[in-house]
Amino acid sequence: MSTWRKAQQLAASNGIDALLVTPGADLRYLTGYVALPLERLTCLVLPAHGDPTLVVPALERHAAEASGVDVEIATWGETDDPFALVAGLVGDAGTIGVDDHMWASRVFALGEAIPTADQVLAGWLVQQLRIRKDADEVDALRQAGLAIDRVHGRVDEWLRPGRTEREVGADIARAIIDEGHETVDFVIVGSGPNGASPHHELSDRVIEAGDPVVVDIGGTMPSGYCSDSTRNYLAGGAVDPAYADAYAVLEEAQRAQLEHARPGVTAESVDAVGRRIIADAGYGDLFIHRTGHGIGQETHEEPYIVEGNDLVLEEGMAFSIEPGIYFDGRFGARIEDIVVCTADGLEVLNNTPRGLVAL
Amino acid sequence: MSTWRKAQQLAASNGIDALLVTPGADLRYLTGYVALPLERLTCLVLPAHGDPTLVVPALERHAAEASGVDVEIATWGETDDPFALVAGLVGDAGTIGVDDHMWASRVFALGEAIPTADQVLAGWLVQQLRIRKDADEVDALRQAGLAIDRVHGRVDEWLRPGRTEREVGADIARAIIDEGHETVDFVIVGSGPNGASPHHELSDRVIEAGDPVVVDIGGTMPSGYCSDSTRNYLAGGAVDPAYADAYAVLEEAQRAQLEHARPGVTAESVDAVGRRIIADAGYGDLFIHRTGHGIGQETHEEPYIVEGNDLVLEEGMAFSIEPGIYFDGRFGARIEDIVVCTADGLEVLNNTPRGLVAL
Repeated sequence: MSTWRKAQQLAASNGIDALLVTPGADLRYLTGYVALPLERLTCLVLPAHGDPTLVVPALERHAAEASGVDVEIATWGETDDPFALVAGLVGDAGTIGVDDHMWASRVFALGEAIPTADQVLAGWLVQQLRIRKDADEVDALRQAGLAIDRVHGRVDEWLRPGRTEREVGADIARAIIDEGHETVDFVIVGSGPNGASPHHELSDRVIEAGDPVVVDIGGTMPSGYCSDSTRNYLAGGAVDPAYADAYAVLEEAQRAQLEHARPGVTAESVDAVGRRIIADAGYGDLFIHRTGHGIGQETHEEPYIVEGNDLVLEEGMAFSIEPGIYFDGRFGARIEDIVVCTADGLEVLNNTPRGLVAL
Repeated sequence: MSTWRKAQQLAASNGIDALLVTPGADLRYLTGYVALPLERLTCLVLPAHGDPTLVVPALERHAAEASGVDVEIATWGETDDPFALVAGLVGDAGTIGVDDHMWASRVFALGEAIPTADQVLAGWLVQQLRIRKDADEVDALRQAGLAIDRVHGRVDEWLRPGRTEREVGADIARAIIDEGHETVDFVIVGSGPNGASPHHELSDRVIEAGDPVVVDIGGTMPSGYCSDSTRNYLAGGAVDPAYADAYAVLEEAQRAQLEHARPGVTAESVDAVGRRIIADAGYGDLFIHRTGHGIGQETHEEPYIVEGNDLVLEEGMAFSIEPGIYFDGRFGARIEDIVVCTADGLEVLNNTPRGLVAL
């Protein structure tokens, strides 16, 4: 069954008369169409009953058709009102579900164009489908994992003392494409103290011998599925003993999480298993983020592996396991793998060495 | 005066008690902070009176500080409610302006967290500032124009019969980075019939001798400002006479638009000047899009050069002039330059040859 038919059934059983989905991962998941997030309105109108329509700007009709969408296409010209077109397709729906990432300008414009309908968020509905990957999706994530592993396997070509993070990052970005991704989504090269900032990206800092370097990289494959893996490198020199001690704890914590995660356990329990080991070793205050995030056609999606999320993991759920320990002003370490729940266990999709890689 | 102070004054004079701005071009314009558009909330809280606060996830504090923002930073931890934090900062504001690209999920969450306030769109307010580029911004656009011109100047290295659009596009993408951009925003290589689809990107179509090829490319510079230029190439062989006739008309139309655009004329009049020439030559139905879009820290922003937009152009307004003629199923042509209004005329920021480039 096509994904939009499943979403339609969920909408009907949840009292939502029509779903409106603008460009982004939900639209790609439901129709296969990768629309540019531009100012002209593209919107899937998916009624709970009846046929869906993809509303696109006239000059993008060919692009939408070429993507092979299996729904009717309706176009609007440069001086038409696209919201009136959507309103006509929605008809007398009482409750309209909008995608979570719809722009505020469109939420407001749809509210004015369809004043009699109640708007509700409907991202949860599509997430409920997206969170369980089927065999094809798992294979797409597997290929993404292999591609980013190949990049990590080549970091020794570029990372050495005397080069800046930005220079190394540019080489990594090229390799992300060369190894099979369609886009580079992020390149973090956090050397020395910059490694202590989990979302640091690139800077002009010159890498020095003895610097631990956090390399967290990912891209999107032609399939639409994403990669994301973090490894830690030592660019020559000797490692600080304090770092080595913490790293051993981090490896133990991540290994315990990989052993624990499987269908039937909660998302938060995966977080807790690693956090306890890190806390027991005295680094609890230095693990300043959750353990992980789901991944699929978006790098970050459900399920989030975080305290307070009592979601029970199921077969087909894919997510990162990436505990970290951060010494403010000195260095940081994070080990990240993408994993997917199998029927009775876990498949790990990143498999380069997890230890500190001395170059 | 910092840009956020100007926005604050506009908010005050328009009865908006606080602006809430999430990651995107508006946030970058107001604070200089380039935040990743991820699921953790980052939001500038800019009251009409008093000091602004940038709300960021704790693990992004360093990244925000490193960007040199000149506002207070407030952080939230992984299990905190960031919307409650924003609500506390907003206080008893009666009217809250949200950025046009804020995600629906945040619009709804803020509505629940601050139930006593009316939400209004406030993108127009920041656009009113962004639409008039100062000298530094014009220079940033000038550098972006030079960078993309260098890429067009190298297209002969890659575009030849027997290669696919995708292969040529990959080479162009690398050159966009090599010539000084930080990101590749789009690469359109529309050969033969694919050139008739204005928003076609890349395909596995093999380019043939005699194919006209539309190459429309752009990226973002480290400054945050964007490039965007379209040229047309002939990959060997002889040009179809029907194409050559239309191309001559297109060149005449675009030249007339470049001569017409200046402070004091309306955006729609620039469109009309070119459209009339194309229509008089009998191609009116084949010019299926507006003439252009503003450009700055976004590739598409105000002012739109389109019928119905009676905005009077002013010094500092930057936009594309890109008429096109499209023969469905055969080929297409589009000539695009970025221009900026000077005090009494127009500076054209793209200056590679506009004629059909025979390789």
